[in-house]
Amino acid sequence: MNARSKVYAQGSRPDIQVPFTQVELSGGEAPIRLYDTSGPGSDPEVGLPKLREAWIAERAGAAASTIVHEGAELECPTQLHYAKQGIVTPEMEFVAVREGLEAEFVRAEIAAGRAILPANVNHPETEPMIIGKNFLTKINANIGTSAVSDSVAAEVEKLTWATKWGADTVMDLSTGKHIHETREHIMRNSPVPIGTVPLYQALEKVNGDPVKLNWEVYRDTIIEQAEQGVDYMTVHAGVLLRYVPLAARRVTGIVSRGGSIMAAWCLAHHEENFLYTHYRELCEIFAKYDIAFSLGDGLRPGSIADANDDAQFAELRTLGELTHIAWEYDVQVMCEGPGHVPMHKIKENVDLQQELCGEAPFYTLGPLTTDVAPAYDHITSAIGAAMIGWFGTAMLCYVTPKEHLGLPNREDVKEGVIAYKIAAHAADLAKGHPKAQEWDDALSKARFEFRWQDQFNLALDPDRAREYHDETLPAEPAKTAHFCSMCGPKFCSMKISSSIKEQFGPDSEVTSADEVTAGMLAKSAEFAAQGNRLYLPMVD
Amino acid sequence: MNARSKVYAQGSRPDIQVPFTQVELSGGEAPIRLYDTSGPGSDPEVGLPKLREAWIAERAGAAASTIVHEGAELECPTQLHYAKQGIVTPEMEFVAVREGLEAEFVRAEIAAGRAILPANVNHPETEPMIIGKNFLTKINANIGTSAVSDSVAAEVEKLTWATKWGADTVMDLSTGKHIHETREHIMRNSPVPIGTVPLYQALEKVNGDPVKLNWEVYRDTIIEQAEQGVDYMTVHAGVLLRYVPLAARRVTGIVSRGGSIMAAWCLAHHEENFLYTHYRELCEIFAKYDIAFSLGDGLRPGSIADANDDAQFAELRTLGELTHIAWEYDVQVMCEGPGHVPMHKIKENVDLQQELCGEAPFYTLGPLTTDVAPAYDHITSAIGAAMIGWFGTAMLCYVTPKEHLGLPNREDVKEGVIAYKIAAHAADLAKGHPKAQEWDDALSKARFEFRWQDQFNLALDPDRAREYHDETLPAEPAKTAHFCSMCGPKFCSMKISSSIKEQFGPDSEVTSADEVTAGMLAKSAEFAAQGNRLYLPMVD
Repeated sequence: MNARSKVYAQGSRPDIQVPFTQVELSGGEAPIRLYDTSGPGSDPEVGLPKLREAWIAERAGAAASTIVHEGAELECPTQLHYAKQGIVTPEMEFVAVREGLEAEFVRAEIAAGRAILPANVNHPETEPMIIGKNFLTKINANIGTSAVSDSVAAEVEKLTWATKWGADTVMDLSTGKHIHETREHIMRNSPVPIGTVPLYQALEKVNGDPVKLNWEVYRDTIIEQAEQGVDYMTVHAGVLLRYVPLAARRVTGIVSRGGSIMAAWCLAHHEENFLYTHYRELCEIFAKYDIAFSLGDGLRPGSIADANDDAQFAELRTLGELTHIAWEYDVQVMCEGPGHVPMHKIKENVDLQQELCGEAPFYTLGPLTTDVAPAYDHITSAIGAAMIGWFGTAMLCYVTPKEHLGLPNREDVKEGVIAYKIAAHAADLAKGHPKAQEWDDALSKARFEFRWQDQFNLALDPDRAREYHDETLPAEPAKTAHFCSMCGPKFCSMKISSSIKEQFGPDSEVTSADEVTAGMLAKSAEFAAQGNRLYLPMVD
Repeated sequence: MNARSKVYAQGSRPDIQVPFTQVELSGGEAPIRLYDTSGPGSDPEVGLPKLREAWIAERAGAAASTIVHEGAELECPTQLHYAKQGIVTPEMEFVAVREGLEAEFVRAEIAAGRAILPANVNHPETEPMIIGKNFLTKINANIGTSAVSDSVAAEVEKLTWATKWGADTVMDLSTGKHIHETREHIMRNSPVPIGTVPLYQALEKVNGDPVKLNWEVYRDTIIEQAEQGVDYMTVHAGVLLRYVPLAARRVTGIVSRGGSIMAAWCLAHHEENFLYTHYRELCEIFAKYDIAFSLGDGLRPGSIADANDDAQFAELRTLGELTHIAWEYDVQVMCEGPGHVPMHKIKENVDLQQELCGEAPFYTLGPLTTDVAPAYDHITSAIGAAMIGWFGTAMLCYVTPKEHLGLPNREDVKEGVIAYKIAAHAADLAKGHPKAQEWDDALSKARFEFRWQDQFNLALDPDRAREYHDETLPAEPAKTAHFCSMCGPKFCSMKISSSIKEQFGPDSEVTSADEVTAGMLAKSAEFAAQGNRLYLPMVD
């Protein structure tokens, strides 16, 4: 029997089925349930079942799905709009069950703009998830074809691989040919929300020349992607003409691709960013499909030297302004953040974003805490990601070992996802999330009791944990042995320690130093009586 | 010509030759010098040259090398003793050149007990290094044979491999057979200080039964290792009889091998820890050889659940007492720390240790910030290590991917060392160490200017950085290409951004938003004049 299995918890109606990975334990404990992003699985050609289809249909055309803005009635089937009206959608209830919280709490956090539930009405395949500082910290994995590496099947497989290891959302950053086709396959096979940077495809439509970009081309691209079901879109509307020179004097200038494209357009036309001047039109389109804004930080620092500078914070102030405009239209919004930041400058980023953006969710890339380790930036950035998550960042965009060097392959995607699941969980522990430590405690208890199979099954990566153990001690008996290869059978600290625990275990009445000393004297008699044989098991 | 080479800086006398890795840069900058721990290299059978032999001989028998304690004159050739007398030893000057600081500052930090310079008089092969919070953060790598894996040659090779990648000290934790012989080969081939846990060998001498341990066996083991040249020794003198029951009620009890052995001894004899009762005799022996104490944290937490508990902090208070006793004998001392600690409980560990131990250097194992990722504990712990380093920990003991699962092989040792060099350097950046950021800035500048070879040569791991780049773009021209595989030639943000930099570069006079707008208008004329051709290079 497989000790790790997928189980579903049912909500208030039969079609609310919330997935978990259930781990059976051999120590007499109840099974433990872990958050599961892997989805139901599917044949890539067929696509996933449309979990949300009925929920979306029930709401279609209802009065509750429209909003009046400056006299005009607009379609507005957004989770934020429903939440503000006090409506708990099936999506909100799904999230509540998934996070182990009250549905009303989920609704209130969304209504306040402190959390978003990305769910395009044209992406019914998504299993609802939530992004907000008062929920489990989420992670995003980037995939996508490029001019020099281009295979639709490979990207769909990366998507499935990323969600298997725990990616909560995936961004399709495809450039080059087949962008539309690649995205279609990704949408239909994704159990998690999909994000994009529409500017990349718009640029393809004008043959890669930023100068030729214009609002019409961009708007058509947005609508094309909205129809396919993209759940959130990165929009670089904060890169204003007057900010560009501030970035030009940096060590690494502008490192955001979208940011550099818009900066190039602004300079070429010496006009204000058209994404900024047409922002309210964008809001109307996003409201109609329930697309969430991911306000891009086009001027994020690209090096330790440029962290927290004028260009970065000037743009952040504009993102704050744009956040409040999106809320006028009941459009969900989160803000993107750096990038490259040394540890002592990380907290300021979260505090300022939360203040300027009315506590809208923060979504950061890393940050990398040093620039000296290309090929290990999943580690340089996991350090910053764990800290910024603890400080209140809601979602962490992964960085793979290939960052700054090349395109991530299958193994790089896994390394990046695992490093970020570690950062996110470390943040949840530090934030004191109610359910976070239960997982650590279960694994620690299994470790102390030498229940190797339980340790492997509870591990973030059971395969590798088992593989590493077997390298030194392959024999099956070693899986139940009361020692490991680190100390060997004779000197195992856990073994000695558990013997001690038998003497002074949880049931011990001993509470003060005096009582302890008294207790010791009593115990000594027992030792003598059994000829100090307490430690004989060690040399078995 | 090799862009990375070993160079030596000479001190005030010809035999003070301080090693650096020098990296030549192609951007017109001066070469950059990086801290180098790799040593001069040697034939394992011959051993390394005795760099410090003359310095030690010069001091032998001098009045400055004795101390009078409670009426008795004791041999005391310790760096702390010389520092207190205002003497700057060649070792201190070597360290000053190595860290880019004044020799007098080095002496003062050692005299204050805030830093240690581990240098057993019988280990003349060491290249002097210093451990203290006001210096570069150091890292330690553990190696050693065990009952189930036993090869002298393999351990010497791990030593050389660890120092090649940046280990500042190495601990030989050998158990099983050939402990003495293994250590002898390690000592004679080590350019870095070697630490041990003498209790492991003492236990071998009583056939692995903790109950049979006694002071005489332990003392003889200490002297045997002192004669071989061990530079610092972990002594578990803080595990007091009355603390044991406090640990017995934990989720993971006692996870320190030395701690569990002494706890077993205390319980079996219901007597106080003999390392505590004979501590002053230990101080006299350590003084004679200039061995530094690494006061062991035998009761460190072994899980998130047990972090910062009564048992841990009770022992820490005793370590504070022992630190001040060691200083009576002018013996150098540092204190060991956890272990497993969630992020929000890390700072308390450093603050309390610094307060109780009079700012003696703190030396921590990680800490791991979560228990759920066996096989990735180099990452779970690099997060905690970077933070605790920033907060003032002087040396970080590495954790490899095999932690909790098996014995690290060659590749695991490298993964652990690199993860910890990242953590240590991130800490130096956050502490604002004067020379730390120069390395990041050099690499960032090379990155922005597409000087790929410079990026590889400046990388913590040049081999892997080059390998990862070549996986996607192997062609030699790509090494100088003004793009990378991430965006491809057309959409490279760095490329666009550097074009912008040409327009508004460091020489730009523009300082205010108004001037910028004015500046933009002026620039627009130039754009028009050249037919908006600024971005044509992009599509080359």
